[in-house]
Amino acid sequence: MKYLFSIFFVFAAGLLHAQSVQSPSKKIELNFKLVGNGQVSYTANYNGKPVILESTLGIKLKEKQALDANFEILSSKVTTFNESWKPVLGQKANILNQYNELTISLKQKETNVKMNIIFKVYDEGVAFRYDFPQQENLNYFIISDEVSQFNLTEDYKAFWIPGDFDSNEYVYNETKLSEIDNSKLDLNNGIGVKSIPSKYAVQSPLMMKSPTGLYVNIFEAAVVNYPVMHLNLNVANFKLSSQLVPNAIGDKAYLQTPCVSPWRTIMISDDARDIVGSQMILNLNEPCEIEDVSYIKPTKYVGIWWEMHVGKSTWDLSGTQDASQKSAGKKPHGATTENTKRYIDFAAKNGFDGVLVEGWNTGWEDWFGNWKEEVFDFTTPYADFNIAEVAAYAKEKNVKMIMHHETSGSVANYERHLDRAFDLMKKYDYPAVKSGYVGKIIPRGEFHDGQTMVNHFNFVARRAADYKIMINSHESSRPTGYSRTYPNYIAAEAARGNEFNAWSVGNPPSHETILPFTRLLGGPMDYTPGIFEIKMSYYDKSKKEQVHTTLTKQLALYVTMYSPLQMAADLLENYEKRADAFQFIKDVALDWDDTKILEAEPGDYVTIARKTKGKESWFLGAITDENARKSEIKLDFLTKGQKYKAIIYEDAKDADWKNNPMAYKIKTVEVTSKSKINLVLAPGGGTAISFEPIK
Amino acid sequence: MKYLFSIFFVFAAGLLHAQSVQSPSKKIELNFKLVGNGQVSYTANYNGKPVILESTLGIKLKEKQALDANFEILSSKVTTFNESWKPVLGQKANILNQYNELTISLKQKETNVKMNIIFKVYDEGVAFRYDFPQQENLNYFIISDEVSQFNLTEDYKAFWIPGDFDSNEYVYNETKLSEIDNSKLDLNNGIGVKSIPSKYAVQSPLMMKSPTGLYVNIFEAAVVNYPVMHLNLNVANFKLSSQLVPNAIGDKAYLQTPCVSPWRTIMISDDARDIVGSQMILNLNEPCEIEDVSYIKPTKYVGIWWEMHVGKSTWDLSGTQDASQKSAGKKPHGATTENTKRYIDFAAKNGFDGVLVEGWNTGWEDWFGNWKEEVFDFTTPYADFNIAEVAAYAKEKNVKMIMHHETSGSVANYERHLDRAFDLMKKYDYPAVKSGYVGKIIPRGEFHDGQTMVNHFNFVARRAADYKIMINSHESSRPTGYSRTYPNYIAAEAARGNEFNAWSVGNPPSHETILPFTRLLGGPMDYTPGIFEIKMSYYDKSKKEQVHTTLTKQLALYVTMYSPLQMAADLLENYEKRADAFQFIKDVALDWDDTKILEAEPGDYVTIARKTKGKESWFLGAITDENARKSEIKLDFLTKGQKYKAIIYEDAKDADWKNNPMAYKIKTVEVTSKSKINLVLAPGGGTAISFEPIK
Repeated sequence: MKYLFSIFFVFAAGLLHAQSVQSPSKKIELNFKLVGNGQVSYTANYNGKPVILESTLGIKLKEKQALDANFEILSSKVTTFNESWKPVLGQKANILNQYNELTISLKQKETNVKMNIIFKVYDEGVAFRYDFPQQENLNYFIISDEVSQFNLTEDYKAFWIPGDFDSNEYVYNETKLSEIDNSKLDLNNGIGVKSIPSKYAVQSPLMMKSPTGLYVNIFEAAVVNYPVMHLNLNVANFKLSSQLVPNAIGDKAYLQTPCVSPWRTIMISDDARDIVGSQMILNLNEPCEIEDVSYIKPTKYVGIWWEMHVGKSTWDLSGTQDASQKSAGKKPHGATTENTKRYIDFAAKNGFDGVLVEGWNTGWEDWFGNWKEEVFDFTTPYADFNIAEVAAYAKEKNVKMIMHHETSGSVANYERHLDRAFDLMKKYDYPAVKSGYVGKIIPRGEFHDGQTMVNHFNFVARRAADYKIMINSHESSRPTGYSRTYPNYIAAEAARGNEFNAWSVGNPPSHETILPFTRLLGGPMDYTPGIFEIKMSYYDKSKKEQVHTTLTKQLALYVTMYSPLQMAADLLENYEKRADAFQFIKDVALDWDDTKILEAEPGDYVTIARKTKGKESWFLGAITDENARKSEIKLDFLTKGQKYKAIIYEDAKDADWKNNPMAYKIKTVEVTSKSKINLVLAPGGGTAISFEPIK
Repeated sequence: MKYLFSIFFVFAAGLLHAQSVQSPSKKIELNFKLVGNGQVSYTANYNGKPVILESTLGIKLKEKQALDANFEILSSKVTTFNESWKPVLGQKANILNQYNELTISLKQKETNVKMNIIFKVYDEGVAFRYDFPQQENLNYFIISDEVSQFNLTEDYKAFWIPGDFDSNEYVYNETKLSEIDNSKLDLNNGIGVKSIPSKYAVQSPLMMKSPTGLYVNIFEAAVVNYPVMHLNLNVANFKLSSQLVPNAIGDKAYLQTPCVSPWRTIMISDDARDIVGSQMILNLNEPCEIEDVSYIKPTKYVGIWWEMHVGKSTWDLSGTQDASQKSAGKKPHGATTENTKRYIDFAAKNGFDGVLVEGWNTGWEDWFGNWKEEVFDFTTPYADFNIAEVAAYAKEKNVKMIMHHETSGSVANYERHLDRAFDLMKKYDYPAVKSGYVGKIIPRGEFHDGQTMVNHFNFVARRAADYKIMINSHESSRPTGYSRTYPNYIAAEAARGNEFNAWSVGNPPSHETILPFTRLLGGPMDYTPGIFEIKMSYYDKSKKEQVHTTLTKQLALYVTMYSPLQMAADLLENYEKRADAFQFIKDVALDWDDTKILEAEPGDYVTIARKTKGKESWFLGAITDENARKSEIKLDFLTKGQKYKAIIYEDAKDADWKNNPMAYKIKTVEVTSKSKINLVLAPGGGTAISFEPIK
């Protein structure tokens, strides 16, 4: 790890009204300027061409004068930073954090309130934040609005979902900015709780592509003690501005100086791969706060879960609650001691780390949709789930149990029980918990993406760290790199996961080609890939739902969707029937020395190769959207001079996500770094390859 | 304990539109009637004269049809109930619960929603509640408003405080109903957080007296999973209606059938003593839910507390936070190990049960007024408070430590730490905790008196019961008898306590003569009496504040203000200086076999005698308002044939709360049940008497 830190300029107050800073590669330039009546503004250029036109920044305060004008510059400072750091688990063993920084120290003339704007300019983009130093004139304050502008030059194509305060589980829309309109969406999409504030509000990260092929992504990093930022669009002029998620009484954030806003990020590149491969969001977060990270381990797991999604068993003991929530007759309860032992046996036999059991605890008979406060107590097993017996059996088989805490959105209730819930986990040696937040939030009036909930999700991670427990949150606000600081926050769902394919319109084949440009920028996603029985008609002839994929695309997702926590989501028997394909899931690594983004185009395709942490083996995943695709891949990422056995899992010739999704072939070839491989992907298909060094 | 239970009438649907029921003594009559368009109404008479004119009842629902009209009667039932039960701690060893009950089963014509109105008619008043049975047509529902009317006949004199959603710490106003107007109040009264919704909103309990001398009190009992009910007044026609306290988004209550509202109570008597002596509120609560009550004990305590109120020491270690919150210079921290040991020594020497220490834990440097969320963690002692050493010392001296949890209104934070806080208490053998809720509530937007907070206060009592811990809440919503169900909820402040006398306009001499008619009806109050150094100029010559009392009135309060948890609030040295008067505080009991309300007039005077639980000793307390008072008391409550040594602590001849408050005399006489005692009370004065049987 090395630091280079040099101060370039320090200007005296009042002498300066504009300042610029470039990225290390000089491709990106950020220009700061005071305009109009002392308003803070910036522009951003890429290769000399404007990307962000003059955009102003400001914070509105409750019961205080807005911090959006009348500023004068006290000083300005440019520094260079160059570091590399080692994530506990990650896409690379060493992450480079290199940028030039511009700090503008401001004072508002009338109020004497001081505020700094800090810009960091990376090779793949710009970040800025508001910084409120400790001062006499500003101690506690309430943000009623943030007005950060991102004024684009033209009508980009955007990959967008509505700026819903409560859900990020949407299918992406691919339209021009000028065509964005939430009122035209079909909202019969399986999402339980929706709070869309307006027609032109979209979520960040917002991935865009200009008509000339420039890729721009607006997002944020280090959302800590602050609400999520969505974006409001002016469809007429392509001006975007920040939309903070409010609390129950319309306030946005409660802060005390010294404090900072999250980083607002604008990634810019003419190569889409730079966006997918960026570690900028992680870099903008604080270093690891956990001293003993020994318990934070890559975790591959199976679990009692998909069987409820396909309607084979239920979460509740009384046998009515499968994922359809309209189960006609009584079905078997999934989380029995006996069924759990079957999963433990399977995990042990196939080298999996863990077994998740959902529906193990009382409360599922009436858990959803009624804004109910006392739903679960997180400590009382159903009568047919003997937690002590299960724990002993898992220990005997050297498998870890993964806890499940569905909160039903009743966060107040969860926090009241959290210590007891974690105590139970420690008692029975559960090292990780999957949490869920399906439903309207309690405290009532709060949204999933407000400051209260952001704080809750981060609090749970910190509290879990007290117990050396790993967290995997579902239906949480989407991560913005906090897993750098609390790497026990090992994964989150926080986007439309694979489960929607089982009982809703599902996720189109392009979905997983967009997520690496959006959701995955903030941290690992528990997407739950690995579905081998792709059509739900297998379980119930009347069902038309299916996963929008071929079988080998499900394999490729283990590589394209980075997560150190990965589920093999399908039923055990479906894996046993296709042991040859299942071999890839058994083999694939979860933690990496290096990652190469080989190909990427949002909405179309992604091809990624990764080197196993501490080993010579590599894995490659390639996926496509609804279109078939051919591609020649150079294997020059492999170690020179080393021979590898490459096992290629690919779509059969006639495979097709819709008509023939489960046709695949497996072939083995010997390759070196000089080899090339021709990828042939079916419509909605994918290829997965493991490269094992030949000794 | 005996039950008499007989069904008088069951009518078939539609046959009946009116029904009446009388109290056991037949003094009070309750009449139910369907009026207008199927509206539920009632009237109440006392000795044949109307007290409540036709008043309608109804519940408004969010997103559902209001339950306020179009009802038909399905059936009606009258039953008689007669029971006596033993409170764990109480004013009497056996409490009689005797009433006639009328249940009206209703169905709304259009919606088929069923609702019952249950009336209980006691000799001292009427109670009714809404009862929502489990039914197909009503499961989860949200109450947007309750419209229960209490239409009075005339312009009563009222003892009222504003219907503040956040505070009950007001001085009572004594005006006619027609003169009620919150906008005319002087709100420079020391209350930190105020939320007064309108000019004519007043709190319940509302104590009133008619021009002809009828006493009427409107209150509620068993407020569980429901907000507090205040009252809106129409000053023109003396109609009162329910004002439920809203939550952050304006909703009142979230309920699921089967469920009930709290009881709405109307106490009526021509003898004011019946109101003070009523156990109706307790009777309307559910029986004790705690199996092992052995840890619930009367607790007399001293503590590090008043010294912060008088500005002698501070809550915070850095020495800035005394009760003035504007301490000019650095003062000593109160909660040191050494100072605590001094209190332990004193408690041990004088037979006290416990020692309270406030300011023992980190966070007090910045604890108030900023809606701060993470204020205290309830587990980290200041460096100068060695909790282990203190606990060991207390154990050695056979004294119990009393914990202190100030939440600063940040309830979300408290709930996150509650198990840890209680764990710490058990570790160090603290059997009781005083909790505080000074400040605006977090979750933000909630009020102290909303459903969320009512649930919080009750939740803390239940959670404490898990640990066998007693709770004494300050700045909570006022109790409505939940201590019958959870007797470990041993006391609460929840009204303007003695502390206000130290640093604000304080409490006028009449204050303690009103509380037995209002706040005390719902349960014990930790008023913290026993101040011997009455004028704050003793500590700081510039101070004009004082307790509005004579010294012996402070003694009398131990009898007139029932609580099984009582503080001797003054500094130890002030007691040591007046050991003769202090003897009464040492002697007085906290738990009683019997209670006699000898004299009572709201705003003027109260005289109460109580017999010690399980012993032959009695104690008498008599207090007056700003007027001197003489009274002859018959001692016929004493056991016939038994001789007693009566020690009389009374105001000296020239005593006066303002000019000469600390002048007292003590005399001893021998008395029997045939004796009389002449009470002579100074302006703002009082008399305390202990009766010890002579063997």
